[in-house]
Amino acid sequence: MHYPEPLAKLIDGFQKLPGIGPKTATRLAFFTLKMKEDDVRALAEALLSVRRDLSTCSICHNVTDRDPCAVCGDPTRDRRQICVVEEPKDVIALERMKEYRGLYHVLNGVISPLDGVGPEALTIKSLLDRLKDESVEEVIIATNPSIEGEATAVYLSRLIKPSGIRVTRIAYGIPVGGDLEYADEVTLAKALEGRRDV
Amino acid sequence: MHYPEPLAKLIDGFQKLPGIGPKTATRLAFFTLKMKEDDVRALAEALLSVRRDLSTCSICHNVTDRDPCAVCGDPTRDRRQICVVEEPKDVIALERMKEYRGLYHVLNGVISPLDGVGPEALTIKSLLDRLKDESVEEVIIATNPSIEGEATAVYLSRLIKPSGIRVTRIAYGIPVGGDLEYADEVTLAKALEGRRDV
Repeated sequence: MHYPEPLAKLIDGFQKLPGIGPKTATRLAFFTLKMKEDDVRALAEALLSVRRDLSTCSICHNVTDRDPCAVCGDPTRDRRQICVVEEPKDVIALERMKEYRGLYHVLNGVISPLDGVGPEALTIKSLLDRLKDESVEEVIIATNPSIEGEATAVYLSRLIKPSGIRVTRIAYGIPVGGDLEYADEVTLAKALEGRRDV
Repeated sequence: MHYPEPLAKLIDGFQKLPGIGPKTATRLAFFTLKMKEDDVRALAEALLSVRRDLSTCSICHNVTDRDPCAVCGDPTRDRRQICVVEEPKDVIALERMKEYRGLYHVLNGVISPLDGVGPEALTIKSLLDRLKDESVEEVIIATNPSIEGEATAVYLSRLIKPSGIRVTRIAYGIPVGGDLEYADEVTLAKALEGRRDV
């Protein structure tokens, strides 16, 4: 005997999600049988809705339900700064800190020759167009501190600097609340390199 | 800035699933943005379908897309044996071994006074009704080897034995491929107790 077809399909569906194998998918599927009907319907409709109602902002390429997005369309944001990030979730992380008032630009990835991702697969051309039209004074590169993130930062910096716009990179260092003892050497070296007067 | 509403709703929806907290829910939600549209729609429809198309078998209470279920409706199954399990997924586990040819009865839980689950919350009355009508010779109790599973087995056995039907319990012991060294004492004691001539 196999699972009844609707259940088998749901197990298949859950397995398409990252980090969810056959066992977890089965557990989730059986759980939905005991969930409140409204909750199951809300989840199903949210799945359909993200694909139907969300698109990317034509200016900054962030995920949005309107175009331009909430940040690009906000007249109180500081148009002199553009913070370049890899993914939409990085925008959320930066917005959570509630200190940055500039604009964003989502690359939708990083340059990664090994994965076959070249500069043309990212939204770099669109970024350069923005730099021409807008009154941008500084581009803050906030790609991740990985090899690819770093390479992308160097690439962007070489591309943008000739135009006279200031290009900065977010600081590396010991995370707040972190412990020197557990920091890896590269981070420690970067933290020393980036030391400031107190 | 918050997440666009469709995304926020999906993150909420995923968090209703077991073992999925805010971080995993966010990761899953962003992942769906990159999934094939068909896969997302299939998952959403499977969610709606399990609640719409699945019900419980009126005989054995297993989850099914028809009534009676595939097992109860199969004329080749041995109607002299009923295997009592806690949950629908236990039926799947037993069917996977392809040796048991009898019928099932799903309790939908175990007796657990601490959680407020008494015998009346389970499908025990329906099991007793089946024992009256059908030509049942043996009830195999395959509840889990937990305190509650054990208590439920004892309870059922006391209830059924007076009717003259044989009541058996699946064996405890060292799992195949297991290691004596890592077996807990209770399992080891049960394995000794259940020893057989070779």
